[in-house]
Amino acid sequence: MAFDSLETPSGRRERVLGGAATHFALAASFFTKVRVVGVVGDDFLPEHEAVLTSKGIDTTGIERAPGKSFHWTGSYVKDMNAAETLATDLNVFAAFEPKIPASYLDSEYLFLANIDPVLQLRVRQTLPNVKMVAGDTMNYWIAAHRENLLKVLKELDVLLINDGEAKMLSGESNGLRAAEGVRALGPKSVIVKHGEYGATAYGSGRPFRAPAMPLHEVVDPTGAGDSFAGGFYGYIASQPELTPEVFRRAMFYGSVLGSLAVEKFGTERLQATTREEIDERVENLRDISHL
Amino acid sequence: MAFDSLETPSGRRERVLGGAATHFALAASFFTKVRVVGVVGDDFLPEHEAVLTSKGIDTTGIERAPGKSFHWTGSYVKDMNAAETLATDLNVFAAFEPKIPASYLDSEYLFLANIDPVLQLRVRQTLPNVKMVAGDTMNYWIAAHRENLLKVLKELDVLLINDGEAKMLSGESNGLRAAEGVRALGPKSVIVKHGEYGATAYGSGRPFRAPAMPLHEVVDPTGAGDSFAGGFYGYIASQPELTPEVFRRAMFYGSVLGSLAVEKFGTERLQATTREEIDERVENLRDISHL
Repeated sequence: MAFDSLETPSGRRERVLGGAATHFALAASFFTKVRVVGVVGDDFLPEHEAVLTSKGIDTTGIERAPGKSFHWTGSYVKDMNAAETLATDLNVFAAFEPKIPASYLDSEYLFLANIDPVLQLRVRQTLPNVKMVAGDTMNYWIAAHRENLLKVLKELDVLLINDGEAKMLSGESNGLRAAEGVRALGPKSVIVKHGEYGATAYGSGRPFRAPAMPLHEVVDPTGAGDSFAGGFYGYIASQPELTPEVFRRAMFYGSVLGSLAVEKFGTERLQATTREEIDERVENLRDISHL
Repeated sequence: MAFDSLETPSGRRERVLGGAATHFALAASFFTKVRVVGVVGDDFLPEHEAVLTSKGIDTTGIERAPGKSFHWTGSYVKDMNAAETLATDLNVFAAFEPKIPASYLDSEYLFLANIDPVLQLRVRQTLPNVKMVAGDTMNYWIAAHRENLLKVLKELDVLLINDGEAKMLSGESNGLRAAEGVRALGPKSVIVKHGEYGATAYGSGRPFRAPAMPLHEVVDPTGAGDSFAGGFYGYIASQPELTPEVFRRAMFYGSVLGSLAVEKFGTERLQATTREEIDERVENLRDISHL
């Protein structure tokens, strides 16, 4: 859970609601009942919580700590594909220790958003009986906390990362070999995100490539990956069984939620969308990619 | 028509047969009768010509000039996505003036490979009655010969370029806007190639995205774009009518020929493939991208 102060070629915003948990939860909320775990400070007001609760998201696991919420200041003015971090104020996040509410213990699908792998592992161990575990990470943990991250990877059914992270984690420069190298570290499936070009899933069978929707304007790329993950995983959680067909369709839902998320600043666009609009965009994505 | 001396992470080759016309003609030869125009020197031996004629390619338009053939020396060791030019020996190419044999004048499909736009325009004017004109260009002509290039663009049914060239030509940094900007300069359709991520076609209707085949090893990226163009355009030329469905399928054929071309050095892989293998790979590409 975070507040983001952003600068992009489309404009600036101060302290908009963000954070991986927020973007993921909103994206997944169109498909399934979502339960969030995170920490916020005194600056997290009822209006912020309402963004989540209005979508039926369970906020029992959001801990209130004295102080300010995590605050990230970033700019995409120089490069829309790589955020430049101007400031990271950890605030209450610095001492965060995720606590799983008793009411969450019957959860079937666990998503471990990008955070210290020690904490990801601890959460996973708190929920040993989930049906499926998916997760994310970032270059920082790959470079500086590799040993801990490797323990998390062994627990994952699905890892979602981007091209650069897959190459860094595997030491391979070829995209396909990189994905296979990451899979060899534990995850049953690896989804590699290619930004504006879509994403590829690598599992035990053949790969699957989902395109991204060409957009006239990317207003704010923050949270695109988390929204992809939320759409992907939320759709899977909504289905009775994880068939290859469900997995493929989940890739399309992920791509669609990612493309919606970036059309406005922060969570604006996901707050305004509907399942109907999402399904319509999945059909559009099919139309522009199928023979 | 060229000889290429290449260095890639997979190895080195000296003076292998290459050039846009060679790669394009070979790729297109699996679909239709191809007629080549180009210039070579004394070093172009019967064995080189046989690479083309063995595929039924008409070489009447290959001019023999005294001296050596165009020779390019390049390296992909630092970056597989951007060739580093170590030497360009224009040789007989320096004074090249394309001459269209009388036996070519009933051609229906014209492809203007990457060359000085003044020459592209002259060739186009020599064949005013063709059914369709497609073409390629590169950053050098965009930057330094823009006025001439703009005249060529007005003649094109299809322009094939890569992401960077589309952005450079249009002055737009967003991919979709860049393609629209290029289309506004003349071409009825613009195909933007995204390297390992595939390609997107932009025309009067909605865009169409074809994925690229994930490959374990890209041995030599030289000629990938020309092979894409040859597969794309050769397939179109083989069809009685250019329907949207034919156009989409042509994008898949282009992608498949591009992916085959890079699996070995120079023209080795295209020489060894068959229409059956090509069709099989189109089916694979469909399998890994369709819901």
